[in-house]
Amino acid sequence: METAPATAAADERPSRRSRRDDRALTCAILDATIAEVDRVGYANLNVERIAELASASKASLYRRWPGKFELVLDAIYHVFPDPSTLADTGGLRSDLLATLRSAADQLAGPAGHAIRGIVADVLRDPRRAAQFRAHTRGNSRQAMRQIVARAGARGELDPESITSRQLEAGLSLIRFHFLTNAGPIPDEVLVEIIDEIILPLFTGR
Amino acid sequence: METAPATAAADERPSRRSRRDDRALTCAILDATIAEVDRVGYANLNVERIAELASASKASLYRRWPGKFELVLDAIYHVFPDPSTLADTGGLRSDLLATLRSAADQLAGPAGHAIRGIVADVLRDPRRAAQFRAHTRGNSRQAMRQIVARAGARGELDPESITSRQLEAGLSLIRFHFLTNAGPIPDEVLVEIIDEIILPLFTGR
Repeated sequence: METAPATAAADERPSRRSRRDDRALTCAILDATIAEVDRVGYANLNVERIAELASASKASLYRRWPGKFELVLDAIYHVFPDPSTLADTGGLRSDLLATLRSAADQLAGPAGHAIRGIVADVLRDPRRAAQFRAHTRGNSRQAMRQIVARAGARGELDPESITSRQLEAGLSLIRFHFLTNAGPIPDEVLVEIIDEIILPLFTGR
Repeated sequence: METAPATAAADERPSRRSRRDDRALTCAILDATIAEVDRVGYANLNVERIAELASASKASLYRRWPGKFELVLDAIYHVFPDPSTLADTGGLRSDLLATLRSAADQLAGPAGHAIRGIVADVLRDPRRAAQFRAHTRGNSRQAMRQIVARAGARGELDPESITSRQLEAGLSLIRFHFLTNAGPIPDEVLVEIIDEIILPLFTGR
């Protein structure tokens, strides 16, 4: 997906397109996708309009993504912050707050709009479920693992005692709240999930 | 909803219809609704066909439920077991297992099919969210409160130390798993949620 194939469509001028250009085009398409999902909703999304907005050919979109579902899924994780860039706040609780607030902020914006559309699609077509899950679980696990590793290094908890299911419980509860409630996630919900669920599970109180 | 109004449509013969008959008609409509959701899916559900299956008039359906969403929501909780009938197995862990297995069985059947459809509706129209939540939270809270009260009476935990969010965490995680995965919920997922999430939160390990 990151290097243009030698047989790229003529309208892409492969001879002039460097690896850098190709990444920039992918970014432009994903940015346009998120903007369009936010404007018209997932159900009404039109791939031709996205190509137009990103000044890309339809062929260049379909070469990268087989369809709307895969394109929007990539677009969501394109705008979500990279877990490896999470701020180190110096404490377990403050790291959790920063991470969950950042996730809630993302869900309150265009990415959240796109996620509601994707999940509605998953519910109508269960074959989509595996694709969706592969994306979400990988990302949340990585973010929580990093927080736990840091807290372990500071002696706040024992990373070995925390199971995968415990690691993911907090983010799953936030996502469930998001899917079954309208509007942004209130900050007190994040604080309750941290203080009443995640911290007891991670530290044994 | 349980007594026929004096002005009921002529096709219902109100003079002959007792309170008992009215309840039986409501049951027949809800049973037909769940059977139809299972057969054709929520999106393709036809209220006229449900009236036909339940030998009811369309007017009698619309007098009870303003639309498809409310009808299916009632039908789901009609087939879900009443929390007050939960078996008392004599122990906290076995009570939790029995309750979550019963919930998972219901989700694997027609009620689960209906819930996927309802949630897809909620995701497209966030105003539905409050209606959906009011139904689900009441039921799950009641079931878990009863289990906790019994365990408290046996001295297995302190009911006062368990917050609302902790009370609901297990069922929320099961529902989240259901919504983001295809097929029935594997038993090992239920066991992990009980052993790694609910029991630590309820008993402090």
